[in-house]
Amino acid sequence: MKKDTDFLKQAIEISANNIKKGGGPFGAVIVKDGKIIAATGNSVTNTNDPTAHAEINAIRLASKKLNTFDLSGCEIYSSCEPCPMCLGAIYWARIDKLHFAANKTDAKNAGFDDEFIYKEIDLPFEKRSLKTVQFLQDDAKKVFKTWLEIEDKTEY
Amino acid sequence: MKKDTDFLKQAIEISANNIKKGGGPFGAVIVKDGKIIAATGNSVTNTNDPTAHAEINAIRLASKKLNTFDLSGCEIYSSCEPCPMCLGAIYWARIDKLHFAANKTDAKNAGFDDEFIYKEIDLPFEKRSLKTVQFLQDDAKKVFKTWLEIEDKTEY
Repeated sequence: MKKDTDFLKQAIEISANNIKKGGGPFGAVIVKDGKIIAATGNSVTNTNDPTAHAEINAIRLASKKLNTFDLSGCEIYSSCEPCPMCLGAIYWARIDKLHFAANKTDAKNAGFDDEFIYKEIDLPFEKRSLKTVQFLQDDAKKVFKTWLEIEDKTEY
Repeated sequence: MKKDTDFLKQAIEISANNIKKGGGPFGAVIVKDGKIIAATGNSVTNTNDPTAHAEINAIRLASKKLNTFDLSGCEIYSSCEPCPMCLGAIYWARIDKLHFAANKTDAKNAGFDDEFIYKEIDLPFEKRSLKTVQFLQDDAKKVFKTWLEIEDKTEY
């Protein structure tokens, strides 16, 4: 039976091969019950999708394959520590465990903004470099009220 | 010419209509040069994609429409403060400005994990509720080294 090391090595191999295909140096593998459900690289530049990081791609693939938005029981192996976008996706997908190799400082040293985005997210929105404004809060809260009143909704 | 209030109101309207379509109570609109490029709701449950939040969907649509992973010059209007996944995506997409209505506490009160995920991301990985392990760092760093040595790569 394959072990954690095998799966993480596979994610790193994908990251290496992905460079040759014109993609970014990142790979991810999702495993359930010892079987690989999804294995893919980053495709931001070759699909023109800024959200197409390896982990996001792998989560989308695994969800499609398992026909559910709930990946409980799955583990993810990522060649690099997930950025906040991907880490958020891992939480939303309810993945059980994360295994990673390089860290966000390594990513920064390779020219990626992961560490910067981690710092930004930690700031109150008024202090972020991304210009941010809030208004119409009461209008939006009314929609949440309606949502809470629905009895037969699909929660996630 | 439409104003910020109009665009944010439209995002909130989408969130309200989205509930009727079986989606979550969230909507987002992306605008460039005063024109709407993408306007869409959350589709996590009806497409079985845990990453399909309104902002992620809107960023994917806008990138496809403009044929680029770089949404510089665009602004995003979101019915709710983006979760860390979506905020990360906004940074990666290089969107200029974020306008939002409800906040992460409102989202929490409506049953969504946004505030929890914000807290988790802020912790060192050893202290998160998501089980996380790191190994094979040197193997992955070698791939970054290869990446840095490529001269004609598409950076992002």
